[in-house]
Amino acid sequence: MQITEDKVSVLTGGLCAVEGVETNGIHTGFKAQDKDLALIYFPDGATVTGVFTRNKVKAHGVLYDMEMLKNFTDFKAILVNSGNANACNGLQGERDVHTMTNALASKLNINAHEVLVSSTGVIGEPMNLQPFNSGLNQLVAGLSTIDSTTAAEAIMTTDTIPKQLSFKATIGAETIHFGAIIKGAGMIHPNMGTMLSYIVTDAALSQKALNTALKSATDDSFNVMSIDGDTSTNDTVLLASTNKVILDESHLDEFTDVLTAMCQKLSQMVARDAEGATKFVTVDVTGAASKNDATNVAKSVATSSLVKTALYGQDANWGRVIMAIGNSDVEVLDPNKITIKFATDGDEILVCNEGLAVSFDEQHALEILSQTDIKIFIDLNVGKSNSQVWTCDMSIDYVKINADYRS
Amino acid sequence: MQITEDKVSVLTGGLCAVEGVETNGIHTGFKAQDKDLALIYFPDGATVTGVFTRNKVKAHGVLYDMEMLKNFTDFKAILVNSGNANACNGLQGERDVHTMTNALASKLNINAHEVLVSSTGVIGEPMNLQPFNSGLNQLVAGLSTIDSTTAAEAIMTTDTIPKQLSFKATIGAETIHFGAIIKGAGMIHPNMGTMLSYIVTDAALSQKALNTALKSATDDSFNVMSIDGDTSTNDTVLLASTNKVILDESHLDEFTDVLTAMCQKLSQMVARDAEGATKFVTVDVTGAASKNDATNVAKSVATSSLVKTALYGQDANWGRVIMAIGNSDVEVLDPNKITIKFATDGDEILVCNEGLAVSFDEQHALEILSQTDIKIFIDLNVGKSNSQVWTCDMSIDYVKINADYRS
Repeated sequence: MQITEDKVSVLTGGLCAVEGVETNGIHTGFKAQDKDLALIYFPDGATVTGVFTRNKVKAHGVLYDMEMLKNFTDFKAILVNSGNANACNGLQGERDVHTMTNALASKLNINAHEVLVSSTGVIGEPMNLQPFNSGLNQLVAGLSTIDSTTAAEAIMTTDTIPKQLSFKATIGAETIHFGAIIKGAGMIHPNMGTMLSYIVTDAALSQKALNTALKSATDDSFNVMSIDGDTSTNDTVLLASTNKVILDESHLDEFTDVLTAMCQKLSQMVARDAEGATKFVTVDVTGAASKNDATNVAKSVATSSLVKTALYGQDANWGRVIMAIGNSDVEVLDPNKITIKFATDGDEILVCNEGLAVSFDEQHALEILSQTDIKIFIDLNVGKSNSQVWTCDMSIDYVKINADYRS
Repeated sequence: MQITEDKVSVLTGGLCAVEGVETNGIHTGFKAQDKDLALIYFPDGATVTGVFTRNKVKAHGVLYDMEMLKNFTDFKAILVNSGNANACNGLQGERDVHTMTNALASKLNINAHEVLVSSTGVIGEPMNLQPFNSGLNQLVAGLSTIDSTTAAEAIMTTDTIPKQLSFKATIGAETIHFGAIIKGAGMIHPNMGTMLSYIVTDAALSQKALNTALKSATDDSFNVMSIDGDTSTNDTVLLASTNKVILDESHLDEFTDVLTAMCQKLSQMVARDAEGATKFVTVDVTGAASKNDATNVAKSVATSSLVKTALYGQDANWGRVIMAIGNSDVEVLDPNKITIKFATDGDEILVCNEGLAVSFDEQHALEILSQTDIKIFIDLNVGKSNSQVWTCDMSIDYVKINADYRS
């Protein structure tokens, strides 16, 4: 399914569209002037699960949350700072996580083990917690039950707009509410461009069921989004349920479907918020011998600098696409069966048919490739599996912005 | 060892520095005006071996040569055209290979199965062999025993300079001659930027021994060169011996050492001939638990667009380096043991010590990173294996040039 207005009811309020969620976001001092500290508060508690970066170097907050989610199912607060990743900071980094959770717990009068924490920003710079401590009163005092825009703003780093989403959907006989905030803008300063997303629902499900749903949803959404092939030390997606609506676990598949569509929508919000990018690109692989083959081919094409620069140049250079296919870890491939099309909404052009060049109208190709939403269709013609990966083009601005990020 | 003037005697003549080698390069019509057809002729025959692209989509010439080298050991000619890759051209592409080898064999009065053929250029465009056929007389008539510069020129595509190398070295009690031409300039139009290299020697060794030496040499040279992570459909390295000097196989290791140093020199000639690049970068990984781990880490850092754009920006952004390390397929990694230095000839700066940020002088870092030869030293501190990968930075010109290559 897709999250469109005719299928679900779009709501306002972001995270606050779900009962039992309060949020706030303020400026403290991790960043020079913008909002940099967000709080998601569940006064009646929430069952939480998460998925985290697969980077082998993980931020201190990520390691802490992973450990906490192993030992506990229910939490009352999620604290997020932007401006400092709290990664590679050694014992000091570990201590700072505890200082933050303890300080917030004390302010909210809850237990420290009921607090999860995320960070995003510069790696390897010890945190200065002075402004954080002095901002806590304001953070808690300003909690809103109406709208999470300030929280969405406070988790931004290189994002150009705050990103949130909320809707309700009928699952079984129940009306289930969903809300989310997300940050990420891969093409700009991907080093700071950690992807953080916080999703809330009122569907009462066990931590295990929530985890099953979230893993499946992320596999078909965030994990097929490839901006530049790098994953950060801090990537985090948390799913929390305030347990306000009883949902029988027999409806878990339906719940997962809705959650998947939601995560796909959130992924696309990130891929589209990329200042350095001029195009949103879908690589659509069909006819693969296995799901793995389809995904490997799609990712190889989506991460190829040569393909991405050709798309920026609006050049129907399918030779680069076929080269990226051949460079992938695909197991079953017959170069003489590969078919490639470039497409946009309502229009497509065949450029390679079963391994052979097709004589095509360059003007027609340019019309398609000058659009901002591009699809590359690849049919491997050796099986029945398919996969989709989202990416963007690689522009001059990508290099410009990334070349002078830190200094 | 290194190929330097004090260790070996540098010679002139490129391929022709080896007895029994004649070469020529001319313009026919695969390209609009530059030289586009090269011939390496061994009047007395040569024992040949080769290594080829690992891309699963291989050009017709590559598939042909691989098959020929399985069935035969000795050859008399290597024919190379530039301007058309003869890849993804179906049956026509296969037929064209045979047309080319037959025509040349007939002109040289040798057997067609004594001819190997390589191509480099645009993928998926059928060859027009008319100019080739009319150029053959001139190609053969102009064969030189003195110098291979015209051949080096004729295999160029996006290279800015022809690249050749020749020297003699003492192996055992024998004086062995070596010559090579190479093309490749990864950063410019890597789609056309196939790496082709032809190496000749007079050391009489069996095809099997030559193959052992070449595989070992390429593993430590061409295969650790990473320009943009893509490998082409046409990459080819051929090693030919004219068998003029008897070399006992007990000296194969020494021969391999010299060949390895030669291939490293050739790789660096390619990495440095990259218009879009401003820096030659060596990623040097030590202290890995295995050779595989060391290579995986080095390649992950060398192919990271974020690391490469930071180097272009002369930014000592070690957070991106540690992120690329964590993203690699390394098996044994302790983030708290990773040490990172940036260096150039005679100067270095420690930026991360055992996982922790080191406070460093930004001005000093800038002095180092503003040089054109940069090293990134990474000590994983978990073992004794090491690996080196060469790459270059990613510049605005990389995107500019690649965005408007084909059209």
